Amino acid sequence: MVLRKELFDLPTGVIYLDGNSLGPLPRAAQARVAQMMQDEWGQMLIRGWNAAGWMDQPGRVGDTGGRLIGAPAGTVVMGDTLSVKVYQAVAAALNMVPERRVILSDTGNFPTDLYMVQGLIEALDRGYELRLVAPEAVAEAITDDVAVVLLTQVDYRTGRMHDMEALTAQAHAAGAVMVWDLAHSAGAVPVELATCGCAFAVGCTYKYLNGGPGAPAFIYVRADLANAVEPVLAGWLGHDAPFDFDLDYRPAAGIGRMRVGTPPVIQMAALEAALEVWEGVDMAALRAASVALQELFIAEVEARVPALTLASPRAAAQRGSQVSFAFEDGYAAMQALIARGVIGDFRSPDIMRFGFTPLYLDEDDVRAAVDHIEAVMQDRLWDDPVYQTRAGVT
Amino acid sequence: MVLRKELFDLPTGVIYLDGNSLGPLPRAAQARVAQMMQDEWGQMLIRGWNAAGWMDQPGRVGDTGGRLIGAPAGTVVMGDTLSVKVYQAVAAALNMVPERRVILSDTGNFPTDLYMVQGLIEALDRGYELRLVAPEAVAEAITDDVAVVLLTQVDYRTGRMHDMEALTAQAHAAGAVMVWDLAHSAGAVPVELATCGCAFAVGCTYKYLNGGPGAPAFIYVRADLANAVEPVLAGWLGHDAPFDFDLDYRPAAGIGRMRVGTPPVIQMAALEAALEVWEGVDMAALRAASVALQELFIAEVEARVPALTLASPRAAAQRGSQVSFAFEDGYAAMQALIARGVIGDFRSPDIMRFGFTPLYLDEDDVRAAVDHIEAVMQDRLWDDPVYQTRAGVT
Repeated sequence: MVLRKELFDLPTGVIYLDGNSLGPLPRAAQARVAQMMQDEWGQMLIRGWNAAGWMDQPGRVGDTGGRLIGAPAGTVVMGDTLSVKVYQAVAAALNMVPERRVILSDTGNFPTDLYMVQGLIEALDRGYELRLVAPEAVAEAITDDVAVVLLTQVDYRTGRMHDMEALTAQAHAAGAVMVWDLAHSAGAVPVELATCGCAFAVGCTYKYLNGGPGAPAFIYVRADLANAVEPVLAGWLGHDAPFDFDLDYRPAAGIGRMRVGTPPVIQMAALEAALEVWEGVDMAALRAASVALQELFIAEVEARVPALTLASPRAAAQRGSQVSFAFEDGYAAMQALIARGVIGDFRSPDIMRFGFTPLYLDEDDVRAAVDHIEAVMQDRLWDDPVYQTRAGVT
Repeated sequence: MVLRKELFDLPTGVIYLDGNSLGPLPRAAQARVAQMMQDEWGQMLIRGWNAAGWMDQPGRVGDTGGRLIGAPAGTVVMGDTLSVKVYQAVAAALNMVPERRVILSDTGNFPTDLYMVQGLIEALDRGYELRLVAPEAVAEAITDDVAVVLLTQVDYRTGRMHDMEALTAQAHAAGAVMVWDLAHSAGAVPVELATCGCAFAVGCTYKYLNGGPGAPAFIYVRADLANAVEPVLAGWLGHDAPFDFDLDYRPAAGIGRMRVGTPPVIQMAALEAALEVWEGVDMAALRAASVALQELFIAEVEARVPALTLASPRAAAQRGSQVSFAFEDGYAAMQALIARGVIGDFRSPDIMRFGFTPLYLDEDDVRAAVDHIEAVMQDRLWDDPVYQTRAGVT
């Protein structure tokens, strides 16, 4: 069994189908942060860097998180944001194929990945091209001029899932460096980074891993590359001997060189505790439970709410851990749902997203959620003007 | 009066002279984070981005912090680490003087500033040079070939303080862009960014501002430049309309474009509460109190502990808010002091650092600290082997 609702502080009256955007509060994280604030920051003060292990935490928590994505110990480090880690990974990857000028990605990638690359190639000013194709056209677009293939495995809008192994093999056959963004994969679907063989992977920890709002990102570098990659963001905590305070940068051995500045210790404490929730979770069992919840949801919605059109792939094997439906008044309908305690979210132009997280969701939750969806749609509750004014984040 | 010890959770038996490295825990931060975890993350879940104001927090907290460094509202934003913000500032500054190739800094700068520049210029690969001179030689080194002057106002080892206004004026006269690192200035000495006229400033908030270990950094961009600078790290939250999910980056108006990824909301909550401690603090009064504590400390140490040699400038006007003494066995002596509850720190090769923070230190603390220093030195307590083994961070 993967269900462990009791480890989360879930609000009463809420069915939370937005763990794909921000995971809920693990009780252990709340306790751990309070303890860290009081006993470590409060009492140890500066001594916490050694005595409480703050200095080693990014690597230690990286190892823990790495186990959920098939990354061997010493290949993952936590820190910064996903955007910053994309920049670091792509910049380092470009240096590995200096004669090529194309970064290939797809139009389903999360925009910040594309923006960071746009900023990078503008700064480099050496004729780099960000080539975007439709997600379905990626395979045939991996040509011999591609330096780096940058893909997010699971599409943030539709949940469509790329085949990591196949595309990585194709990238390698074409002489390109593969960078995977696992934002919607880590803790959602089984990932085997070492098997996959990609050079880099990045991701965030505030979605399925429940690390809290703004939790640190992660970066993975394949073990055989870790001593060779250039971190580009050459911060002091990626230095071989930061407390020597040398004037010249000399990268640390291994994954530690991908660290940049002082780690966010409070967020790290929350994340470390959040990852304890995963102890004993078998990712294959989690995946099976996720698929079962998704299939139930799709079947119930399609049977009871014909106005919604499935916007995710119908084949479970091609979906991550979310299901999206298209509906013209989707924004307002989602607001009406949220007002009833069923929290999903909306992505332009018409996508209602629902995330499935078997750690704290069961079939009763799914059925109850569909009851609300049915009621909202039958009674056209989205017609209420109160639901039609768009706020910033949904 | 600036003394407000009661707002901090200081350990009993400790005299904390390391607030220049990590500020102590403000009681309000502890309460605020617990409340944020429970009521916002726990109960609001994803809705916290709007309902709890998480999305606007980096700018809001930036405005609050900006008041302590003479920055008008809308010119400072919080986020990332100081290292990342140095990269962003220097990269943006270089774009403002595309025909020049020299970044000038000094050998007293904190190494991560230099490392980040080294990583940047290696990536840019266009013949940039990081030119390092002694701190005393900076003024004469600001020549017509300098693109960017990057200086930390207060030296992390000696406390020596640069004249921001004079050096900025000189940089401008030479056609260079001025970037100030205020890591050891913000909350320590009066800073008037708008008056100073520099283009960029960056800093951290976990030292004198007491934001907590790994608290977010800040970046300041002069108001008239904010709509023109290129953020380089072009993250989605610096986009003009992040929730449109455009495929192309388009920077936000103003300082918001210097945001990168998802902000660390838990750390932001701690920082926001920590800044409340500063309400009503007059920076000139704080400076006067700091100088009084420093002068008392120097006089007492020099009168009672002749083995220590002042390593900071003797003139108060040339020091920040710390005092350093050189002593050959300084590392072990500092460990012996810490074991007695007087917490300062050590920087190679022989610097014992003591930070003075009038929010929670008074003259009695200073005298009591010198009592301990005198005892440690008289009894040669540093000779104990237990104090001579170096750990990572001091």
